[in-house]
Amino acid sequence: MQLGMVGLGRMGANIVRRLMQAGHDCVVYDRDPKPGAALAEKGAVVASDLKDMVAKLAAPRAIWVMLPAGEITEATLTELSGLLSPGDTLIDGGNAFWKDDVRRGQELSAKGLHYLDIGTSGGVHGLERGYCLMIGGDKETVARLDPLLKALAPGKGDIPETSHRDGRNPTSEEGYLHCGPVGAGHFVKMVHNGIEYGMMQAFAEGFDLLRNASAREGLPPEYGFDFDVAEISEVWRRGSVVTSWLLDLTASALAADEDLSAYTGNVSDSGEGRWTVQAAIETATPAEVLTSSLYTRFRSRKDHTFAEKVLSAMRAGFGGHVEPKKPV
Amino acid sequence: MQLGMVGLGRMGANIVRRLMQAGHDCVVYDRDPKPGAALAEKGAVVASDLKDMVAKLAAPRAIWVMLPAGEITEATLTELSGLLSPGDTLIDGGNAFWKDDVRRGQELSAKGLHYLDIGTSGGVHGLERGYCLMIGGDKETVARLDPLLKALAPGKGDIPETSHRDGRNPTSEEGYLHCGPVGAGHFVKMVHNGIEYGMMQAFAEGFDLLRNASAREGLPPEYGFDFDVAEISEVWRRGSVVTSWLLDLTASALAADEDLSAYTGNVSDSGEGRWTVQAAIETATPAEVLTSSLYTRFRSRKDHTFAEKVLSAMRAGFGGHVEPKKPV
Amino acid sequence: MQLGMVGLGRMGANIVRRLMQAGHDCVVYDRDPKPGAALAEKGAVVASDLKDMVAKLAAPRAIWVMLPAGEITEATLTELSGLLSPGDTLIDGGNAFWKDDVRRGQELSAKGLHYLDIGTSGGVHGLERGYCLMIGGDKETVARLDPLLKALAPGKGDIPETSHRDGRNPTSEEGYLHCGPVGAGHFVKMVHNGIEYGMMQAFAEGFDLLRNASAREGLPPEYGFDFDVAEISEVWRRGSVVTSWLLDLTASALAADEDLSAYTGNVSDSGEGRWTVQAAIETATPAEVLTSSLYTRFRSRKDHTFAEKVLSAMRAGFGGHVEPKKPV
Amino acid sequence: MQLGMVGLGRMGANIVRRLMQAGHDCVVYDRDPKPGAALAEKGAVVASDLKDMVAKLAAPRAIWVMLPAGEITEATLTELSGLLSPGDTLIDGGNAFWKDDVRRGQELSAKGLHYLDIGTSGGVHGLERGYCLMIGGDKETVARLDPLLKALAPGKGDIPETSHRDGRNPTSEEGYLHCGPVGAGHFVKMVHNGIEYGMMQAFAEGFDLLRNASAREGLPPEYGFDFDVAEISEVWRRGSVVTSWLLDLTASALAADEDLSAYTGNVSDSGEGRWTVQAAIETATPAEVLTSSLYTRFRSRKDHTFAEKVLSAMRAGFGGHVEPKKPV
Repeated sequence: MQLGMVGLGRMGANIVRRLMQAGHDCVVYDRDPKPGAALAEKGAVVASDLKDMVAKLAAPRAIWVMLPAGEITEATLTELSGLLSPGDTLIDGGNAFWKDDVRRGQELSAKGLHYLDIGTSGGVHGLERGYCLMIGGDKETVARLDPLLKALAPGKGDIPETSHRDGRNPTSEEGYLHCGPVGAGHFVKMVHNGIEYGMMQAFAEGFDLLRNASAREGLPPEYGFDFDVAEISEVWRRGSVVTSWLLDLTASALAADEDLSAYTGNVSDSGEGRWTVQAAIETATPAEVLTSSLYTRFRSRKDHTFAEKVLSAMRAGFGGHVEPKKPV
Repeated sequence: MQLGMVGLGRMGANIVRRLMQAGHDCVVYDRDPKPGAALAEKGAVVASDLKDMVAKLAAPRAIWVMLPAGEITEATLTELSGLLSPGDTLIDGGNAFWKDDVRRGQELSAKGLHYLDIGTSGGVHGLERGYCLMIGGDKETVARLDPLLKALAPGKGDIPETSHRDGRNPTSEEGYLHCGPVGAGHFVKMVHNGIEYGMMQAFAEGFDLLRNASAREGLPPEYGFDFDVAEISEVWRRGSVVTSWLLDLTASALAADEDLSAYTGNVSDSGEGRWTVQAAIETATPAEVLTSSLYTRFRSRKDHTFAEKVLSAMRAGFGGHVEPKKPV
Repeated sequence: MQLGMVGLGRMGANIVRRLMQAGHDCVVYDRDPKPGAALAEKGAVVASDLKDMVAKLAAPRAIWVMLPAGEITEATLTELSGLLSPGDTLIDGGNAFWKDDVRRGQELSAKGLHYLDIGTSGGVHGLERGYCLMIGGDKETVARLDPLLKALAPGKGDIPETSHRDGRNPTSEEGYLHCGPVGAGHFVKMVHNGIEYGMMQAFAEGFDLLRNASAREGLPPEYGFDFDVAEISEVWRRGSVVTSWLLDLTASALAADEDLSAYTGNVSDSGEGRWTVQAAIETATPAEVLTSSLYTRFRSRKDHTFAEKVLSAMRAGFGGHVEPKKPV
Repeated sequence: MQLGMVGLGRMGANIVRRLMQAGHDCVVYDRDPKPGAALAEKGAVVASDLKDMVAKLAAPRAIWVMLPAGEITEATLTELSGLLSPGDTLIDGGNAFWKDDVRRGQELSAKGLHYLDIGTSGGVHGLERGYCLMIGGDKETVARLDPLLKALAPGKGDIPETSHRDGRNPTSEEGYLHCGPVGAGHFVKMVHNGIEYGMMQAFAEGFDLLRNASAREGLPPEYGFDFDVAEISEVWRRGSVVTSWLLDLTASALAADEDLSAYTGNVSDSGEGRWTVQAAIETATPAEVLTSSLYTRFRSRKDHTFAEKVLSAMRAGFGGHVEPKKPV
């Protein structure tokens, strides 16, 4: 099957590679000519611009846009929508805000174009592990592109089967799912990332506690420990309740350097974490953990908050308290 | 009435002053002779040591211990319990852990001594405003010492009367209350401080948000503000729902320096905040706000947590993400 | 000075009353003729519809819209904007979303109209206490309407002066403040309500803890208390750090019924709480307490969340755990 | 190697089975004779009481106590300590509080006995999957019992090796680890369970949000979804960042019944979650997520909190607000 790919960063280029490994044909384009040239060696057809890409694809066309930022994605989709013909399909595989998808889907539908929003998980490991795909759009378009989606997904692999799944949607077990109408794909991906934030924070707090529980001045005398968090993360990988890919990654990082001294601790957040909280509020869903996980990242990027100064000022006001010099 | 006071720091000395202003007699002692000398000028009798204090008081004696740290308090009470006679009363007016009171009350009771735990709020303003007293102990002892307690409390003042209070305990309206058996006083004071943490954090977050909402790069274009938080804190003092003493203190601090540049933002926490969370857990009480308020103080005293490094290491692991340079 | 008031619910009608008590002239309108008739007895001029109101006001006009829901407010402002003349002023005193104000201000400005967004705090007590006013809009319009704003505000009253305020904006001490351009008024009111949520939750958790700490089966033996939360709320009103109007209200409710048995505990939330969290996220401000306070309200309105069923299902999955029958 | 096992509930009995499958000899005892009889058929020697067990074991003995509650464990260990000889070893494999271990270890050491605290994860699946063992105690004792520990642990299995582990402790990769002195085993297990709480809550909130985002009255119009959470949980099992054993369990539960209608949502908590928060507070470790996860369980077991009634009472006080009838 044929796919056009716009945006050949790590994600876009690896998606193309995985598709070509499965025998699909890819027409590719990026403003930077280098990644396209590398893919051409593997058999990709390189387009010189978006118009050329449209010309090089046979109708009904499918073009996947995989660009880092929302504004460029919007501009690219708009330009492409003027070049395509009714019945063609546009796909946004980036991390878009799902309400933008809903709006965009309506706009494209008015032009007779199909639109899929595909939340794509897999990161740097997707090429070999496959990509978990969460797809929003109309049923027919998703069905028509099934060969591409199946090729990108991880497949059943050697993961144990879930019980009670007789008669259920078989694609879930392959690692891709049509989640609902336009917007559903990025919504599910957004919630996935929200959960990811929470799981990460749970591990982070646990390891922080283990480190802080090592014997030092000021702690109660029972705290006579000197924990090796690298070994602890490793032992939990087998038979414990917290076994997970995130634990595997943590074990690897801690094995390399138990102090994680390469990291300062300024933690980024992406749109998904913020949008998850926004959706929690719009739907009146208590989401303490997902939200706290986001806030700890906000806090991590500041020396101090103004909030903390307000607290100190109040304490000085009612009790004459003087600030400590960073006791822990 | 007569009271012995051990510990003449700011709190102890001001309590003595307020009692003497009301016509009571005080015998005072502190390891440092200076504050006793100052009080002697106002009419206090200075004891040379604990034994001398006991000798200078008429039975049934009442001795208030007002010392900064738990260990010294424990040692002092133990020493005094060996010097006193059955029927005498010991008072701990410091910030003790209420379970220590329960244990101590049983020990002292076995010696025929009475014990009161008095949670004392009022801080640096207590001398003129009076002290809000939360009292634990047996009913008879509390009743016997009522003249002292009444003198220390703020009194009705010009605060509007609460409706529906016919037939209720009149001392509450004077600002002192027998809360229950030994331990109850410090328990109620502990919860008071827990609430105080939560209220402080609510204000702190609100003012932080106002500051962060001022127009700057990266914010949505609607954020075109340049808020004067000193004026905002002042306007809220009249007619708004958040009027409170803590707001008064904040308004004063912000009026002096809207940037609070005298403060770094390292915020101390005291035992009460921690004990409140411990009690919440023992009683299965969800206490999100009281607990978060404590945790933000923990976090305020660190450059970074190990937790944050774990998060960054995971992000590098699954997505190849590089840490930001402190964007806000 | 003259003001038109659209919407004569409790808030609108009381604002009119307070203005007329200060000698101002009010033209009033409500779809329901009853509240207008009541105000006419006090001297208000009743308009038969919006067009009539505009006719009854002298240019440059000022019309305050005080309607409960965003949609009706929007429709009313739109209709009025078609009836007014350049130089006239529209005011929204309701609880609008500040971004709607920003948009609306631009639309009205294009028609030569002025727009003020006034966050109004005071609730059912505003008529006698006055209203705390947080105002957004252009400087000239705010200055021109100063007599009305001053009349509505609580005034200095007998509240102690804040120190360090020499040379600062005198209106803050009267209880009204020009906070910035259009949107600033509702933004500040929104943050005010966010803080209010946090303060309320802090008190709520504290009193919950006191109730749960009363002696009962399953608690550690030290918990031998039987706290009277009505008395505790009263004693804190004098000399304690948590003195506040919210505590006054709580003391009154608890004095009437210590069990609060008139209330089920389904707690509403309004737009302000949600918008505050949204602003915290947009500005990367950690707002743990403000957000938790909102989430506890969401949770209060549910019998159970699906989240809780997921937890129980997991526990059954890994440990064979059976759900408890509501132990506490 | 020889081991005595006291307590033949599901955990104790399965540990014995797994040891015997690996060729070890077990002497077993339980107050209930039935589980011992079942194990005898597989080759276990049944003791008639603790004294008999000691008699049936060769010195230096090792006895593992696996009892559900802390009090029985304490009593059993005390009784055994009077029957054993210097050089013998007692093991507590239950979910004990680590500070009890520290105290107990000192008491037993004074009698010349060794003591190991072994946190044991694996639940109902441990017999076939193996048990993840977190061990506290002295180095020599742990080394001497290595054959037993190795047999219980899951072993390397087909789990991918962690990078950068050259020269590191090989037992971690087998699923068992000597974590430090007495207390360290249960401390690490406690933190493990704390993390487990946080991960569970992250998933629970995510699935709750997906359910709440399905189209219904009152939601913004973009929410036109009808998510199948069973399929979503399944698709995330492959290639996504949240792959984990907890997700596997959730997928299985949701596949059996997407509504989880067998569960009411009253979620238990165990000591570990509470002790984790306690340790976080003692070590000044911000642990927002671990703590929130505990609080949501507290809340799940109540119809309403008193806190919620306080909120409603305040709202009635300042705004005349009436409670809603459970809108969502």
